[in-house]
Amino acid sequence: MKRSGMAAVVALALGVTAGTVLAQAKPEVLVKQRQAVMTLQGKYFGPLGAMAQGKAPYNPDVVKRNSAFLDNLTRMAWDGFDPSTKDVKSATLPAAYEQQAKFREAASRLENEANKLWQVAQTGDEAAVKAQIGAVGKACGGCHNDFRQKQ
Amino acid sequence: MKRSGMAAVVALALGVTAGTVLAQAKPEVLVKQRQAVMTLQGKYFGPLGAMAQGKAPYNPDVVKRNSAFLDNLTRMAWDGFDPSTKDVKSATLPAAYEQQAKFREAASRLENEANKLWQVAQTGDEAAVKAQIGAVGKACGGCHNDFRQKQ
Repeated sequence: MKRSGMAAVVALALGVTAGTVLAQAKPEVLVKQRQAVMTLQGKYFGPLGAMAQGKAPYNPDVVKRNSAFLDNLTRMAWDGFDPSTKDVKSATLPAAYEQQAKFREAASRLENEANKLWQVAQTGDEAAVKAQIGAVGKACGGCHNDFRQKQ
Repeated sequence: MKRSGMAAVVALALGVTAGTVLAQAKPEVLVKQRQAVMTLQGKYFGPLGAMAQGKAPYNPDVVKRNSAFLDNLTRMAWDGFDPSTKDVKSATLPAAYEQQAKFREAASRLENEANKLWQVAQTGDEAAVKAQIGAVGKACGGCHNDFRQKQ
């Protein structure tokens, strides 16, 4: 459990540095990279959502693997929402660039919920896992409601 | 260090189960997902390659973060190379579907080298880190040489 928590702290501490490293990336590349993260979040969250809704059998090993991946993935997209990307075609609403404090707060919420899911997954408590899958889904939706075009 | 090693073992053990869960995914979705992994491997390996080549200043915190991400990412693409995807347009050569044992061996090599990089990154030994970045790059290239169209 130590590794994930530490990684989150390191990621926060790296905010400026990572931004600097990425400053050279073209806006189109940043958009492609952040969309890649969303694609993979869908890949690994989808089966968990199905389990939480009783549409797929509960599989604690898949929960452990997917939640570890999601704990990492949820920290990969944010530096891609650089203001330099605002004119690149995507589903992102202008609010994501204009309301940066609110955006960051929603991003942190997802990171925290995903990290909690990974922690709960280690316990194997099915009811707690399913409740936390719901919390992650809610955090995804919270950000999409405010910052993504309706689909 | 425990977490990553365990995750790798779990991922191996899950081979069949994960395949079953993903059997419903459409070939186009599988290709999009595996390409998303490659995009993010590029995002997080790029700065490390630059450091190893002396083109960017060595930053141990970025090495730690990126190598942890890469340790996870290198385990995400393989189930996307399902034989059902062989007719979807991509840079993948038929050999990836036809020589599955060889493909899996190359995949495992990358996973192992990326895991070693993450381990070495914890020590902060700059020379060892740079050597291992080279080993990861070689493992990427080994797979691309045999299974990806020349670009």
